[in-house]
Amino acid sequence: MTRLIATYLVRAEAAAIEARARAIAVEQSVEMPLAAIDDAAVLEDIVGRVEDIADRGNGMFAVRIGLASATIGTDAGQLLNMAFGNTSLHEDVVLADLDLPEALAARFGGPRHGIAGLRARVDAASRALTCAALKPQGLPPARLADLAERLARGGIDFIKDDHGLADQDYAPFAERVAACAAAVQGHRTRYIPSLSGNLDDLRRQARQARDAGADTVMVAPMVAGWSNVVALGRDFPGLALLAHPTMGGFRIAPDLLIGRLFPLIGADAVVFPTHGGRFGYSAATCRRLAENARVSAHRQRPCLPVPAGGMTLARVPELLDFYGPDTMLLIGGGLLAARERLTEETAAFVHAVAGHSYQGKRRWP
Amino acid sequence: MTRLIATYLVRAEAAAIEARARAIAVEQSVEMPLAAIDDAAVLEDIVGRVEDIADRGNGMFAVRIGLASATIGTDAGQLLNMAFGNTSLHEDVVLADLDLPEALAARFGGPRHGIAGLRARVDAASRALTCAALKPQGLPPARLADLAERLARGGIDFIKDDHGLADQDYAPFAERVAACAAAVQGHRTRYIPSLSGNLDDLRRQARQARDAGADTVMVAPMVAGWSNVVALGRDFPGLALLAHPTMGGFRIAPDLLIGRLFPLIGADAVVFPTHGGRFGYSAATCRRLAENARVSAHRQRPCLPVPAGGMTLARVPELLDFYGPDTMLLIGGGLLAARERLTEETAAFVHAVAGHSYQGKRRWP
Repeated sequence: MTRLIATYLVRAEAAAIEARARAIAVEQSVEMPLAAIDDAAVLEDIVGRVEDIADRGNGMFAVRIGLASATIGTDAGQLLNMAFGNTSLHEDVVLADLDLPEALAARFGGPRHGIAGLRARVDAASRALTCAALKPQGLPPARLADLAERLARGGIDFIKDDHGLADQDYAPFAERVAACAAAVQGHRTRYIPSLSGNLDDLRRQARQARDAGADTVMVAPMVAGWSNVVALGRDFPGLALLAHPTMGGFRIAPDLLIGRLFPLIGADAVVFPTHGGRFGYSAATCRRLAENARVSAHRQRPCLPVPAGGMTLARVPELLDFYGPDTMLLIGGGLLAARERLTEETAAFVHAVAGHSYQGKRRWP
Repeated sequence: MTRLIATYLVRAEAAAIEARARAIAVEQSVEMPLAAIDDAAVLEDIVGRVEDIADRGNGMFAVRIGLASATIGTDAGQLLNMAFGNTSLHEDVVLADLDLPEALAARFGGPRHGIAGLRARVDAASRALTCAALKPQGLPPARLADLAERLARGGIDFIKDDHGLADQDYAPFAERVAACAAAVQGHRTRYIPSLSGNLDDLRRQARQARDAGADTVMVAPMVAGWSNVVALGRDFPGLALLAHPTMGGFRIAPDLLIGRLFPLIGADAVVFPTHGGRFGYSAATCRRLAENARVSAHRQRPCLPVPAGGMTLARVPELLDFYGPDTMLLIGGGLLAARERLTEETAAFVHAVAGHSYQGKRRWP
C-alpha cells in the first residue's frame, strides 16, 4: 500500500511532541482510538504512521507522517481533506510539505500547457513574459475593453481580469469577455478571463471564453474547490489555467465561518469541535458559534449546532447544560471504543440525553 | 448602493492602523491605486469604505469596512472572495465578522430544513438530538453497515459517515450508502452519507443517497467550494445538509499551496504575491514557490510562476534577475496608474523585460 508523506510544522513542548505526532497521524487517517480498531488491515494499511520527528528549535518540530494513498482515491478535494482537513483547525500546526507517490500525483494530471504552452501562445521562446490586469471593478465592459486595447497596443503578453471581476450586473461575464477578447484581436496579446461560481458556471463561462477566442482562463482553487478545478481542466483541455491565490491563507474566526457562513450557504446543521475536546476552541468561541448558528439571522431558518471532537459519554450532562436542547451531540470514537458493547453504550448515550435535567435558568447560547 | 460590513482584527502599530485599514478597504474592492481611478461612480459606489477603527488593546484593532454588495452578485464563492480573498494572505489579519444586508443574505437561501426539519426526521420535538459516526475508514461496506445497525439498535438519532469516507476502493460510495441505509431501516435512526468530489460527483452521490432512503447528507464547504454547496442545496431541496468543518482553519505554506499543489491540480501558471510588495512573503518563500512551480514534479509539465502584488516598472530588472526568464511578471495597478500614458508605460514594461540582461551566472530558483 503506497503512502504520501505529509510534513507538518508543529509548535509543541519537547516532552509532548511524540504524542502529538501520533495524534496527527490518527486524526488524518482513521480519526478514532486505535484501541477500538480490530481490523488488522486497517491498522496496518490505513492508520497514519509517524515517519520522523525533527527538532527545528524554538519549540518547533517538523513531523513527517505517512498517509495511505488509498484513503484519497482520485479526488483532489479529498487530497486536501486527508492531508490537512481537521488538523487545519489546530492553530499551532502548518502543513508544510507533501511528498506524493507518482501514481497518486498522476491522478490529478498537472499542468496541461505549462510554460511551453504559454510561451507558444505569445510566441516568446525564452524571454520572460508580461501580464497586466483589468481593473477597477465597477467599470462597464466597454471601459474595461478600452483598457485592454491600450494594454495590447503596448505589446503586453497577457491581460488577466481582476480576480474580483465575476458576473456582476455592472460587467456581466459574457459581455465583458466578448468585449475584452475583441479588444485584443490583431495583437499578440492574450486576454485571460476570470471564471467564478459553481461547476456549471465555470463550464458555461469557459465555453463563452473559448467562443470569444480566449485560450487561457483564471480560476481560484480555494474558492472554486479543487475537485472542480480538476473537472474544468479535463472538460476544456485546450484552455490553460491560471490559478489565483485568493483565500490561500485564510484564518476566519470559527464562530463566523462555521456558525454563520456555513448556515448562510445552506447548512441545516454544523459540526464543530467543542471546547475541552481535541481542538483549541474556547468555551466562549463555542458559545458564540452555537448562538450564531441558531439565531434566525436574515429571517432564515435556525441551524442546528453539532458539537463534536473527542466528546465522551461522561461529558453529556455538562455539554447539555452548556448548549441547551437545541443541539445535536456527536460522539464518534468515544462510542466506537465500546467495541462489543457498542449498542449498549449507544443506548446509554441516548438515555443520558433524553433524561437530562437542565440545570438552572441560564440562557443557552 | 447597499454595503456589507466586514470586520477584521488587525495586528498593527497605532500610528499605522489608519493607513492599514484604508489599504484593506482598497484590497477587498478595487485592488488598485485610487489615484488611478477616474470614474466617479466607482469611487463612490464600489471602493471599500473604512467605517470604524476600534483599539482592542495589545496591538490589536478591529477595523470595520463597508464593501459594496454589487461586487458580490449572487455567488457564494464570490462572497468569500470579496470578504477575505487577498487579505487572507496577510498573516496578521483575521476576518472576524460579516454583517450582510438582508437582500444580499437572501441570495444564499440559508438552511432549508434547519432545526425543525432535523427534529421532525427523528420525531424529537424538544430534547437534544444524538449523532454517531461510522469509522474507521478502511472497513468494507458490510462492516460499516454492521456498525450502523448496532448504533441504530442503540436508538441513536443520526449516524454520519466519517468525513474521511469518500468514494474509495475499499468502500465505494454507492455500495456503502446502500448498505448503511439498509442497516438503519426499521429504526428511527437516520444515516447521513458524506458527499465529496466535484459538483457532478456531489449530485450523483446525492441521488444515490436519496434513492437509498437518506434524507440528510454531509458536505464540507471548504473542500467542495461554497458555490457548489449552494447548487447542491438548490438541486436537492429535500435533503438536509450537514456541514463538516474540515479545512476550516488552514494555514498552508504558500510555497506548497501555490507553488506545488495548484499546479498539481492543473494550473498552468500561478499568480503569487512577491517579496517586497504588498504582502509579507519573504524572498526565500518566493524563491521556493517559483522553484516548486517550475520543477517537473511527478513527471508533469512545469508550471509558470507569475509574481505579482504591488509590482512596479522600476522593479522589473531586480525581479528578472531574481526569478530568471521562465517567469511572467504581472503588474496591475502600477501600469494603470499611468492613466493617459497607459500604452506607453506598458510598452516601457514590455521593453524592459525584452531587453533585460540577466546578471551573473546565478542559478534561478
